[in-house]
Amino acid sequence: MSRDFEDHCWQDVIDPDTIQIYQAYQRKIYVGDNPAVLAIDLYNKAYLGGNRPVKEVDREFSGSCGENAWNALAPTQRLLAAARRAGVPVIYTTRHLDTGGVQSTNRNLKRMGDDIYDIKAELKPGAGELVIYKERASAFFGTPLIAHLQMMKVDSLIICGESTSGCVRASTVDAYSYGFHNVVVEECTYDRSMLCHKVNLFDLHHKYADVMHVEEVLAHLDGLAALRKVA
Amino acid sequence: MSRDFEDHCWQDVIDPDTIQIYQAYQRKIYVGDNPAVLAIDLYNKAYLGGNRPVKEVDREFSGSCGENAWNALAPTQRLLAAARRAGVPVIYTTRHLDTGGVQSTNRNLKRMGDDIYDIKAELKPGAGELVIYKERASAFFGTPLIAHLQMMKVDSLIICGESTSGCVRASTVDAYSYGFHNVVVEECTYDRSMLCHKVNLFDLHHKYADVMHVEEVLAHLDGLAALRKVA
Amino acid sequence: MSRDFEDHCWQDVIDPDTIQIYQAYQRKIYVGDNPAVLAIDLYNKAYLGGNRPVKEVDREFSGSCGENAWNALAPTQRLLAAARRAGVPVIYTTRHLDTGGVQSTNRNLKRMGDDIYDIKAELKPGAGELVIYKERASAFFGTPLIAHLQMMKVDSLIICGESTSGCVRASTVDAYSYGFHNVVVEECTYDRSMLCHKVNLFDLHHKYADVMHVEEVLAHLDGLAALRKVA
Amino acid sequence: MSRDFEDHCWQDVIDPDTIQIYQAYQRKIYVGDNPAVLAIDLYNKAYLGGNRPVKEVDREFSGSCGENAWNALAPTQRLLAAARRAGVPVIYTTRHLDTGGVQSTNRNLKRMGDDIYDIKAELKPGAGELVIYKERASAFFGTPLIAHLQMMKVDSLIICGESTSGCVRASTVDAYSYGFHNVVVEECTYDRSMLCHKVNLFDLHHKYADVMHVEEVLAHLDGLAALRKVA
Repeated sequence: MSRDFEDHCWQDVIDPDTIQIYQAYQRKIYVGDNPAVLAIDLYNKAYLGGNRPVKEVDREFSGSCGENAWNALAPTQRLLAAARRAGVPVIYTTRHLDTGGVQSTNRNLKRMGDDIYDIKAELKPGAGELVIYKERASAFFGTPLIAHLQMMKVDSLIICGESTSGCVRASTVDAYSYGFHNVVVEECTYDRSMLCHKVNLFDLHHKYADVMHVEEVLAHLDGLAALRKVA
Repeated sequence: MSRDFEDHCWQDVIDPDTIQIYQAYQRKIYVGDNPAVLAIDLYNKAYLGGNRPVKEVDREFSGSCGENAWNALAPTQRLLAAARRAGVPVIYTTRHLDTGGVQSTNRNLKRMGDDIYDIKAELKPGAGELVIYKERASAFFGTPLIAHLQMMKVDSLIICGESTSGCVRASTVDAYSYGFHNVVVEECTYDRSMLCHKVNLFDLHHKYADVMHVEEVLAHLDGLAALRKVA
Repeated sequence: MSRDFEDHCWQDVIDPDTIQIYQAYQRKIYVGDNPAVLAIDLYNKAYLGGNRPVKEVDREFSGSCGENAWNALAPTQRLLAAARRAGVPVIYTTRHLDTGGVQSTNRNLKRMGDDIYDIKAELKPGAGELVIYKERASAFFGTPLIAHLQMMKVDSLIICGESTSGCVRASTVDAYSYGFHNVVVEECTYDRSMLCHKVNLFDLHHKYADVMHVEEVLAHLDGLAALRKVA
Repeated sequence: MSRDFEDHCWQDVIDPDTIQIYQAYQRKIYVGDNPAVLAIDLYNKAYLGGNRPVKEVDREFSGSCGENAWNALAPTQRLLAAARRAGVPVIYTTRHLDTGGVQSTNRNLKRMGDDIYDIKAELKPGAGELVIYKERASAFFGTPLIAHLQMMKVDSLIICGESTSGCVRASTVDAYSYGFHNVVVEECTYDRSMLCHKVNLFDLHHKYADVMHVEEVLAHLDGLAALRKVA
């Protein structure tokens, strides 16, 4: 279970000098005491065009993450199921179709179907699970998320979703600023560009979060489920 | 003055597929109507060990940006001087030495000299210029910056300083969220790792800011100075 | 147009010693340069039970402001019409019926009709006008209001609605903190308790806002409309 | 220990109709599970001119709370001591002398001595206790307080200090918005105007906090100290 601090998808793009410079960030990584899962922007738009390379689906569906989204689907289903078994709350973000001209980034958006910001059916929220509607990249900006987390006495987050270089990064940086211990689940996080995905995960892992593999997080959640059943 | 949208330092690291996928972000770039310069973390710590490669200075001075900081010194001096001539306010950020255990990132910090968070003498604030003390990466988080900008009727920022992948990125994302038009000045922004620097500038340029070359920004400020002198 | 600084509804409840102590707050009051109207919680719930004393309507409709709401209806219609003629944007707040257990205050709420948080028909938003959905008392907390105001280059607010001691006060204090110049329109603001209404207006007037009479604000907006027509 | 919900200093100013209308707010009041004391603006300026009526000290020292401040001194000392015995963290707020023109309210301030924003010696912070420097009324606005509270896993506040109608109210409303359970200690909270003090405590008690008597809070803290000693 204890893989090396740098044993992650960025190994083929980060040079040895950078790894050496970043040694000051090495530390024990862990899931926090009372976590919630923050599932970012798992909406239909990310999956449009199907399980194909991003540059193919992008021609018709700008903003789709193509095969990167689809590859993360099964591990994310496992993550959400394990969290629910362990009594760990799952919180979703998405956005409203019309937000009066305020956009989360500078991308030029074409109007697509009315259900593009619905959470994908295979990952859909359970009854009573919180859905945060946001207008900006961060799940915290302009939303009541911090109040809900405080009232739930959550002290740490397990973060998944998309995009690594957009909403996942912005939300994780804010979560760190607010004082949460953050885990980002590598296999349940995705982006359009693999280089951006890898470098952003690298940045997050060293500065603001513990990037962990889904198997490590699942093992932790299963342990928590067993513990909470006993208690 | 109108260089290509992708004519920036990231050209040697971003692959053609990614450039194609990111075409949806193409737009005219510009400096906003009533800007302020936001000079992020231009403190002594970034320059420790002198004008040498980061991996050399890092052994003694973790957190120093070495030659990357020193290379940005002259262009940043020109930027600050041009802003002042144009009547554009300059706002600095730095941090207090002791912040009760709250850190801006996960880096393990050793105690260094008492002046490490003083702004570097060559770049020091003029009389009456605002200095924001922050504890987190973003210049907005846990600071009154937004109130000062609102009261100054500033609608846009010209951002420089360090590090690209840390405080510059976090501050720029927040500035975009708050509704500011942002310019990040490429030659006046720096980091320890060149790959992180380039990919973060690429991310910022497409999603949250207009990354511009210092010559373009200087030309704009000189034009503004002439205009304001006349008016 | 220039009525005395203390010529307001609180004169019959604030004692002379307090007036004397508060002299340090005296200043010229005015509407800001580029204002927006912030119309707070003008939803059906405040009018339930009709134009009768609060203690009568309260038995059936907890939260209704009764005759205080109805008395403000005509002046508020005039205020909104004048703002629209002057090209001053009107921004509304209300709330969603179900907010996952987060409440704006400690009041015990019974479930009422599904339209209780719809804006009252006589005051309803025009096409394209912004409606902010909030969960807490302040229009700023957990909402993207600050981003919208920044993007609209609004530098000041004209505030009306309810309740004076709840959402109006909390929103006005936040607006002051964010750096806006605030006008609260006396005749277009209301509460359940007259004493709370008066003391809260007194507090707001001295510390965070210019409480103005509706006739003063209408005259200003009519002047602005004439000016903007000419320009 | 269980005094009536309305057995507080406001009984002589709030009319029976208002009490009836506010019955919907009645609930059990309590100190939260893991509280911190938030001691607001207990700085020298509030005590200037000595233990005399506000209208007398105000002539020379605008902003002094006179005898109201001095009357709260002994109970506040007891509160702080009890909190420390119980291991409950004490957090202070104050402000810097010079904040670049941003003020917490509209009051016209004259420059006084350089120590006016030092915490009063009798109430001074212990070694390592957190002091938050703010520019606005609320202890949360433009400060990193929320991050410190989150990292300390604090879920509730015990609030004291001044002024009831200014910084205490603004901080308590924000604390409620962020999701904290709040106690305001009646005898340790003060203002210049008694009417404003009473009506603001009334507002806070019903909407955002449990106003409790100092004896009740001391009893709770002593119980907590005993419990934590045993455990």
